[in-house]
Amino acid sequence: MLRLDLANVLSERIGPKGIDWPSALAAHAQRLEAARDALWQRKSDPAEFLGWIDVPEDTETLRRVLRFREAQAWVEDLVVLGIGGSALGAQAVAAALGKGPVRLHFVDNVEPEPILELLRKLEPHKTLVNVISKSGSTAETMAAFLAFRRWLEDRLGPDWKRHVVVTTDPAKGVLRPYAQAEGLPAFEVPRAVGGRFSVTCPVGTLPLAFAEVDLENLLAGARKANEQARAALEHNLPAQTALLHHLFSQKGQNIVVFMPYSTRLRYLPDWFVQLHDESLGKMRDRAGQEVRTGTTAVRAIGTTDQHAQVQLFREGPHDKLINFVRLLNPSEDLEIPAVRGLEALDYLFGKSFFKLLDAEAKATAHALAKAGQPNYTLTLEQLDAYHLGWLLQHLMWQTAFLGELWNINAFDQPGVELGKEYTYALMGRRGWESLAQELRAEGVE
Amino acid sequence: MLRLDLANVLSERIGPKGIDWPSALAAHAQRLEAARDALWQRKSDPAEFLGWIDVPEDTETLRRVLRFREAQAWVEDLVVLGIGGSALGAQAVAAALGKGPVRLHFVDNVEPEPILELLRKLEPHKTLVNVISKSGSTAETMAAFLAFRRWLEDRLGPDWKRHVVVTTDPAKGVLRPYAQAEGLPAFEVPRAVGGRFSVTCPVGTLPLAFAEVDLENLLAGARKANEQARAALEHNLPAQTALLHHLFSQKGQNIVVFMPYSTRLRYLPDWFVQLHDESLGKMRDRAGQEVRTGTTAVRAIGTTDQHAQVQLFREGPHDKLINFVRLLNPSEDLEIPAVRGLEALDYLFGKSFFKLLDAEAKATAHALAKAGQPNYTLTLEQLDAYHLGWLLQHLMWQTAFLGELWNINAFDQPGVELGKEYTYALMGRRGWESLAQELRAEGVE
Repeated sequence: MLRLDLANVLSERIGPKGIDWPSALAAHAQRLEAARDALWQRKSDPAEFLGWIDVPEDTETLRRVLRFREAQAWVEDLVVLGIGGSALGAQAVAAALGKGPVRLHFVDNVEPEPILELLRKLEPHKTLVNVISKSGSTAETMAAFLAFRRWLEDRLGPDWKRHVVVTTDPAKGVLRPYAQAEGLPAFEVPRAVGGRFSVTCPVGTLPLAFAEVDLENLLAGARKANEQARAALEHNLPAQTALLHHLFSQKGQNIVVFMPYSTRLRYLPDWFVQLHDESLGKMRDRAGQEVRTGTTAVRAIGTTDQHAQVQLFREGPHDKLINFVRLLNPSEDLEIPAVRGLEALDYLFGKSFFKLLDAEAKATAHALAKAGQPNYTLTLEQLDAYHLGWLLQHLMWQTAFLGELWNINAFDQPGVELGKEYTYALMGRRGWESLAQELRAEGVE
Repeated sequence: MLRLDLANVLSERIGPKGIDWPSALAAHAQRLEAARDALWQRKSDPAEFLGWIDVPEDTETLRRVLRFREAQAWVEDLVVLGIGGSALGAQAVAAALGKGPVRLHFVDNVEPEPILELLRKLEPHKTLVNVISKSGSTAETMAAFLAFRRWLEDRLGPDWKRHVVVTTDPAKGVLRPYAQAEGLPAFEVPRAVGGRFSVTCPVGTLPLAFAEVDLENLLAGARKANEQARAALEHNLPAQTALLHHLFSQKGQNIVVFMPYSTRLRYLPDWFVQLHDESLGKMRDRAGQEVRTGTTAVRAIGTTDQHAQVQLFREGPHDKLINFVRLLNPSEDLEIPAVRGLEALDYLFGKSFFKLLDAEAKATAHALAKAGQPNYTLTLEQLDAYHLGWLLQHLMWQTAFLGELWNINAFDQPGVELGKEYTYALMGRRGWESLAQELRAEGVE
């Protein structure tokens, strides 16, 4: 069960900042149905980058991933070299559901000190390096790969090849021919799957197999979200949440807070931030008109951020739509014990931690509604692979629906190109000399 | 050295979204000087909560903290029970500068599963629990304390008292009398210091002493920021950065991105988010007028978020002011090695990781400026205790200056009260029965 509670966005609850849901849904039914039908129809065209819809059906690839993992029983440390979409999904799911004994390390930056610290700590003969880059040209990932590749060979000699597994494009790019030439095991990022939509393909599943996550159920949950995304509007959860985001962005709310009530879900907002921001922050629509779309996703964790951000959420400007994520049931619970001398806290004695967590979540949502701050809650029956897979795929669908409503391409990222070119110029790459000169003239060197 | 580079907020660089700095500074000189003088004058009044200005001068308390830490050589795991301002500062500094061998664990939520996991992992006779709450009534912190307190006594008997250290109000609240009655070691949160301004007092320094952070230099850096905050405007860094925030909030930029280029600084944005949001997100000004102030701080890490948020920062709406934090020098560096078969990446061969990190930072700032997105950079000479202490205190001063410019109380948090009351009601606390009934009538239970 993945349930949407939208009481706290309704005018009757939050006053003039609210909406009338039945009439809003009716008014947008045609556009939402058109969006749904367009997405399902375009899915077979690889150029549309809708491959993520079908990936959860691909149980054959999952079996290959699991067989590979079983064959590497010697691994004690898995180093994932990847950045952005090549790291955030696995990181979020591993934090939520991962179990030992293999330790996962995500190298998603090029700051030298943490890389040196990790290299000093690892034992090469117990370490597997999973380099993840679709193009094989991501500077950060490849710089790290060069360093780890050299480190492995320096310590293990020709045996380094047993310690690298590649996840990359099926045919193109730098890493595929390299893996073939060196005889390295390699998995595919399907052609029509972009980084931020890749958690259910080997980009996510290979690291997560080493974290002992129940991947069959993760994919089954994602398929459940697909089922909802195909349904009529009254059962189409992502169409509904996309509409909420659309309506409030039209009202001027340019901030979207994503706030799960769970420390285990602490990296889920980071994954959502990328999915949402990179997909929907676009200068031009599909017709080439300048539109500058995009609401800014903000990370928060409950209850923790009640003591950090909620003051602003409640008393600050009405510029936010807040999306809470709650769990209906804990996996296990703990009683808050009575302690003599601390009777001032006796209202906690004998209650459970989960009850307190849940009360805080409800209290905060209600207090925000009282201040006219719109918020809605997605409730997961429990935090397991099935429901997390469902939620991840739901959020991908929500993003795709929003892209349709705003008539933008939610699957590219043209705005990061110029920064890459400047980096090439500043790094002295051949062919970028004139840009380097231009930058020097502008005082950047 | 802590340097401000504001070239990328100027009209000549970013066009119509930019400002003319000399004239803006001149136009606001009087208000900024008045703000500075008011803050320094009010500092002696405990009711003004400006105690954080003088805390870095208090080397006597620091010596007590260090003596306490030395006397606990047996500690292998330090568990910090605290939430919001009672955790974020120590967490940020420990991630940046902390060294083993003591492992730090921050319990800042009440989700049962992570607490159970931690309790199963810890060895009680090697564990010290530092409970941090000024009032001793924070539900999350105290629920966790009840659980850890009981766990220690169950396993260690009367010896549990050696395993708890309390950080709380000098006189008031629940924990001070409890510590006295039980004979527990206790440190003070000075009366005039609020949670989000507490990193240089024992709230921060006690855990950081166990992380082997150079606290003398952390405090020396904070004193350096005080020196600047007292100076004339042309040398007053926090007055200047506060003015930048003020000017862009007036232009409609309601989002502030805080983006250090460093994985070691990965928790610094979380600390800043609380400092900024909770201080400045206020419904009423000091005259009681409804004002709804507050810009929303957004966490980002470079280069990592170039692959997550920068697409939106560049192509999305002009609703952000971006604050980069960069390091001028690495502590140590690593060369990117050449690898045969990967010559497509030869522009990286022989370059250093820090050079790549630095090039990406400059490239991103420049690419954002080209898109008319205002951004400024604070550069630290290096990442050490002195410069981090300077930066932390600088940001506290910036926040205080902004509070003055907006005529709000930056040191309270009235907006979190209602949520606390709802929580009491939902937890069945005595005295809150009628509110509980009200909530039930509204469908919340």
